[in-house]
Amino acid sequence: MAATQAELSKTAGKPIHCRAAVARKAGEPLVIEEVIVAPPKSCEVRIKIICTSLCHSDVTFWKLKDFPGCFPRILGHEAFGIVESVGENVQELEEGDPVIPIFLPDCTECTDCTSKKSNSCSQFQFKVSPWMLRDGTSRFTTVDGETLYHFLFVSSFAEYTVVDIANVTKIDPRVPPNRACLFSCGVSTGVGAALKTASVEQGSTVVIFGLGGIGLAVAEGARICGASRIIGIDINTDKFEIGKQFGATDFVNSNSYGDKPISQVINEMTNGGADYCFECVGMGTLVQEAYACCRKGWGKTIVVGVDKPGAMLTFKSFDILHLGKTIMGSLFGGLKPKSDIPLLVKRYLDKELELDKFVTHEVSFQDINKAFDLLVEGKSLRCVIWMDK
Amino acid sequence: MAATQAELSKTAGKPIHCRAAVARKAGEPLVIEEVIVAPPKSCEVRIKIICTSLCHSDVTFWKLKDFPGCFPRILGHEAFGIVESVGENVQELEEGDPVIPIFLPDCTECTDCTSKKSNSCSQFQFKVSPWMLRDGTSRFTTVDGETLYHFLFVSSFAEYTVVDIANVTKIDPRVPPNRACLFSCGVSTGVGAALKTASVEQGSTVVIFGLGGIGLAVAEGARICGASRIIGIDINTDKFEIGKQFGATDFVNSNSYGDKPISQVINEMTNGGADYCFECVGMGTLVQEAYACCRKGWGKTIVVGVDKPGAMLTFKSFDILHLGKTIMGSLFGGLKPKSDIPLLVKRYLDKELELDKFVTHEVSFQDINKAFDLLVEGKSLRCVIWMDK
Repeated sequence: MAATQAELSKTAGKPIHCRAAVARKAGEPLVIEEVIVAPPKSCEVRIKIICTSLCHSDVTFWKLKDFPGCFPRILGHEAFGIVESVGENVQELEEGDPVIPIFLPDCTECTDCTSKKSNSCSQFQFKVSPWMLRDGTSRFTTVDGETLYHFLFVSSFAEYTVVDIANVTKIDPRVPPNRACLFSCGVSTGVGAALKTASVEQGSTVVIFGLGGIGLAVAEGARICGASRIIGIDINTDKFEIGKQFGATDFVNSNSYGDKPISQVINEMTNGGADYCFECVGMGTLVQEAYACCRKGWGKTIVVGVDKPGAMLTFKSFDILHLGKTIMGSLFGGLKPKSDIPLLVKRYLDKELELDKFVTHEVSFQDINKAFDLLVEGKSLRCVIWMDK
Repeated sequence: MAATQAELSKTAGKPIHCRAAVARKAGEPLVIEEVIVAPPKSCEVRIKIICTSLCHSDVTFWKLKDFPGCFPRILGHEAFGIVESVGENVQELEEGDPVIPIFLPDCTECTDCTSKKSNSCSQFQFKVSPWMLRDGTSRFTTVDGETLYHFLFVSSFAEYTVVDIANVTKIDPRVPPNRACLFSCGVSTGVGAALKTASVEQGSTVVIFGLGGIGLAVAEGARICGASRIIGIDINTDKFEIGKQFGATDFVNSNSYGDKPISQVINEMTNGGADYCFECVGMGTLVQEAYACCRKGWGKTIVVGVDKPGAMLTFKSFDILHLGKTIMGSLFGGLKPKSDIPLLVKRYLDKELELDKFVTHEVSFQDINKAFDLLVEGKSLRCVIWMDK
């Protein structure tokens, strides 16, 4: 599966010609092209991608005509790979290391990265940049010399990519590639939101708005925490059968109650509200519903879904003051990429965290557009795309 | 000071004629009148008020022409008194007990009152009711038979009042009356917001919007928690000298920076934001500023101030998701009246919590309107009103 050390060293320091799936126009099928991947600069590594998985954010930015959508671009940000070569000033990684790229920078040195409380690196701010993290340029060109944009500091829909060391985490080689890639984004985000951001208590009641990959990962996290009741809310009832595999115990079709607010449904089901409500859709009105679904006195509303740029969240001042509920956000599940991911990996190796059920499809790289179709049609949770198949 | 047991028992079971300061019209001086205080009903106690102190909420409701403002009413909700007699089904209190009334019900039996996490009684909902808690009637009439409204389940601007046992907490008799009354509302609210709701960590940076009684109580709480920097924000610079006595280390006059947002001033002062920001004014725009003043990654915004009915709080969805900050409210400082107040009292008796500095004025009952003038003019923090002087 992985390239041998001898293979890797042959290419170090030189541009690599390889295949990439290029997004050339918003919403149009990716085009597999020959691209040139420059060698890594200082504090960067070049990674041979073994497999990559498709996340909703890839689809969102693939569809986005205007900035921060931009084309031609190499999308993809959930992946597993092997370090092919390292740039200057790279101590923590070397050729042959199994790694996952992670969109959220972790410099390991700043106030935030050295604090247990934060995963919001101060040295390198997370943003949806079309460039490399540190020097703001691209490592990708076409054979005609056209520059290709990066995505989320990762761009894993290519046989090789260059990633800043702040965006790379080593991973235990015992994790199979098609499970390792899941730790890059969606699964970690959902599981972390329950485990780390919310610290779901044993025996508690959890409500999840949206049973996509992230919502189901929240359910998996809540299950691991020992939640006794996990209520999934969705308009797609096909999700309910799937939800059961992830520990969800109850289901609410939010289209089935007419004018009755979902918060009222949940308040009746739970005798006053849930201990934790996770909004995994990315819709302001649902965050307000989630807040209303929370138990007064101690309920936590955790925003996990990514809303439209500029979207606002509004709450009654009276409610915030009187009801004793907390509102918090969870970016990448509140996890610190380099120190918390190994802890999640351990839970996987200990068979506590179950990953198999997230992977509903696997395709070869040349069929990458099928992965998009499956996700857009709501048929897949995670589709793994194998680069060498 | 306190009535003897013999004096108390003479009146048990009978209506008591005594003086009360009646709010007859919005914003007009209280009128000291003879009123009749009915005996306590089931689960109620009648309390001989020894002293009462004036809180901003009294002034707010005194000025409020329309509902929930209503007249004629006996205001007042911070007080110390002695139980004069008890109604049926009262086990936890008896004649002669030193007590403080507390507006927030604590039934000691419901899910919330038996949980460590909540101070939001489920059996009796807190509301700004003009009646007794349990049966929704009044215990006050004038000698002409006119019904007088209650306030916050307390109505302490009277020589005697009737209060539900869910609104009464016993207090250690070693606490002097003019310190005991402070535990009823404002001081507990501010100190509790820092100690209990926010759990301010040693060495942290705290920002307080509004240096009135509650804001200064937050400063006192943050000082007790070992905060290394306590930044007070106000438009009244007279508050800055007072603030120093409460542990505030820095001051910002929010009128001194022109168009520069206060959040920018605070971010520059603190190199990226404060660990905790308390809004003690009750103004939505300040809550947003407080949120912007919080350190990304872990900052907590705590809403303590009471905004206008119907006021809304708006945040950027992007900020909630990305910045790792928490928003929470603190009603009565998150304290449970019957179990947490004794802990605060212990801190006072241990000379850890300093109360003397809160009492800037003391007047006799007949001068109660002076107490209003002093507070409205911003000259007093707490003015204690003695009933028998």
